Amino acid sequence: MGKINIQEKFALFSEEWTPKIIAESNGQLVKIAKGSGELVWHKHDNEDELFIVFKGHLTLKLRDQNIELAPGEMYVVPKGVEHCPVAEPDTHFLMVEPASTAHTGELQSEVTVAAEDQEWI
Amino acid sequence: MGKINIQEKFALFSEEWTPKIIAESNGQLVKIAKGSGELVWHKHDNEDELFIVFKGHLTLKLRDQNIELAPGEMYVVPKGVEHCPVAEPDTHFLMVEPASTAHTGELQSEVTVAAEDQEWI
Repeated sequence: MGKINIQEKFALFSEEWTPKIIAESNGQLVKIAKGSGELVWHKHDNEDELFIVFKGHLTLKLRDQNIELAPGEMYVVPKGVEHCPVAEPDTHFLMVEPASTAHTGELQSEVTVAAEDQEWI
Repeated sequence: MGKINIQEKFALFSEEWTPKIIAESNGQLVKIAKGSGELVWHKHDNEDELFIVFKGHLTLKLRDQNIELAPGEMYVVPKGVEHCPVAEPDTHFLMVEPASTAHTGELQSEVTVAAEDQEWI
């Protein structure tokens, strides 16, 4: 695999809340996604989920606080912690999480993208 | 742990080739470092090493090619692959790697920073 230009990868898709895989490292996948509005409340029982925002504004609603992320800011949602991502229009962010991580955790929602449908770009 | 502003973390230190830990996720550490000039040839037998450049220009010299990384570009050095990082003055980059990863792999050099000396900021 060659080098990866993150902005060029963001230009390859427009779907929201549909993570695209851009790299793998030590069994973890690096994914990028675009978001707008609210996803759903969910948690990952066994996986921490690292977020870095590249454009826009991402709020990670937790049950006891809101984490507000501007470009250049990151946060790790610890395993087992319920969260609900909310994004300003055209927010771009990157995630690092184990390959085993389900999109919306144990929750099966109409917005859920199954692992087998998460594509490499 | 709260949110992390990556630029604010870079402002906290000036040492070169001295990774600082800013987060942990799934047993992997997120580190940031500044570099200038050439580090040393080394490899990590058991760990992939993910690099994202934030400022400047980082060349990852491999035995068979050079990977040239500008801001917003990333690369994963696969486990076992010899590499030598070379940076323009005041280059800033982020790494994600397992907590077990030794700074310069099996090589003990005068530039090596021992794991116990890699500090959280």
